[in-house]
Amino acid sequence: MDAVRIFRGNQRVDHVDPADRGLAYGDGLFETMRVHRSEIPWLDAHLQRLQRGAQRLAIALPDEAVLRAEIAAMCASQDAAVLKLIVTRGVGGRGYAPPQHPDPTWMLSLHDAPPPMRQADIIWCKTTFADQPALAGIKHCNRLEQVLARREVVAASADEGLMRDTSGNVISATSGNLFIHDGDGWCTPKIDRSGVAGICRDWLLRHASVRETVLDRDAVQRSYAIFLCNAVRGILPVRRLDAREWPESAHIRALQCQLADAHPGFQ
Amino acid sequence: MDAVRIFRGNQRVDHVDPADRGLAYGDGLFETMRVHRSEIPWLDAHLQRLQRGAQRLAIALPDEAVLRAEIAAMCASQDAAVLKLIVTRGVGGRGYAPPQHPDPTWMLSLHDAPPPMRQADIIWCKTTFADQPALAGIKHCNRLEQVLARREVVAASADEGLMRDTSGNVISATSGNLFIHDGDGWCTPKIDRSGVAGICRDWLLRHASVRETVLDRDAVQRSYAIFLCNAVRGILPVRRLDAREWPESAHIRALQCQLADAHPGFQ
Repeated sequence: MDAVRIFRGNQRVDHVDPADRGLAYGDGLFETMRVHRSEIPWLDAHLQRLQRGAQRLAIALPDEAVLRAEIAAMCASQDAAVLKLIVTRGVGGRGYAPPQHPDPTWMLSLHDAPPPMRQADIIWCKTTFADQPALAGIKHCNRLEQVLARREVVAASADEGLMRDTSGNVISATSGNLFIHDGDGWCTPKIDRSGVAGICRDWLLRHASVRETVLDRDAVQRSYAIFLCNAVRGILPVRRLDAREWPESAHIRALQCQLADAHPGFQ
Repeated sequence: MDAVRIFRGNQRVDHVDPADRGLAYGDGLFETMRVHRSEIPWLDAHLQRLQRGAQRLAIALPDEAVLRAEIAAMCASQDAAVLKLIVTRGVGGRGYAPPQHPDPTWMLSLHDAPPPMRQADIIWCKTTFADQPALAGIKHCNRLEQVLARREVVAASADEGLMRDTSGNVISATSGNLFIHDGDGWCTPKIDRSGVAGICRDWLLRHASVRETVLDRDAVQRSYAIFLCNAVRGILPVRRLDAREWPESAHIRALQCQLADAHPGFQ
């Protein structure tokens, strides 16, 4: 079993071309997917988000049948793992103008599932998300903001960090979406001007009663319950954010049970 | 002579690792340098900007002596060319957190000098630069905004395009800085919240009388003379922007002569 497979169009290749636009400009998209018993429970949702991103950036995607077959081959006999897919615009000359009809470069890599975490101690990051509707929501490869924010998390020995936009609105964690219970119900920040619209967030919006809204720092600090979520960890309750601590929440537990029923990988 | 050389730390390698953070997140920096008679006239300025970017992103740089020796080897016997340098944070695991002490990945690639252009017909791009002081000024590899803007330029069969920030302030062309003469003197937009602080722009700020200011679309449209500049083309007069045309300008010609005297590559 190969830990990494690289393709150009529908052809497997040995190496990434050094002139790839992914390297030059972060000109690509990615998906990070939880593998459970040789399958990816949310594969269709991941591929739909990839499609939305490819339309937004006008990046060609590989043939879906080839992509699905290679994903299945990589997942076979994997009980619990993480599969990462990167698709770039392909090889391009010097300069920002995309080549006319490049074959996309794509690669699949298998990684260990992260160690289990029951709850998270998190911080407020100083690094912000810029306001950029043209890139909001999709999972593109321009991620320096999250890289810088994650350095703050590591420096603080925290588990995660919350990022705001330049206006102070809370957007998400560095690699997960944010949900708070305000006493009346669940809320999650809108992802129309920055941030990534996560696959687990999408599932929750469709299967639970959640308001998409604008949240400031105070609303988060005084919330009744708070969790992060992504497609690798599922729902991760927050225990502490700066000085505030939250007790275990029956509201969060109910959502976790609902998610585990739908996707046994998150039990 | 190799058209591309790739390194990891101070060691030459054959290929880019598919787990490179440049590919995953655009987690890197680049410089695009004009080669003239086997030398790069502005090499020191390029390496200083690279250093500023590396400090901002906490990316390790290769040993400067090794870097300069390899640059010299690539430029030897090149009469007129473009040398591109990319430095990424190096190989990293899955996830935004940078590895502790990765060796940077870096690569040098030689390209043809662009065909000469006397003046440019340009457009207003709809794609904006996001407001992100943490990344402004440096030449990092998160360039999807310019890629999208450059698609507009290609679609309009124009030579270049001007980009504004989300507040409407004019920032730069997709791959060059903007200077306008307002009748009183030269002005160029501040690059403290978005955009790239170009090497030719820097040279002009030091060798001509230029005000760094905030410019809106009207100020540009009614300007007395207008040019773009970068380290590959030098000073490029604008002939047309949307419906407005500018005659040849003695003010621009004077700056071009001053630049050609300092750097014969721009004659």
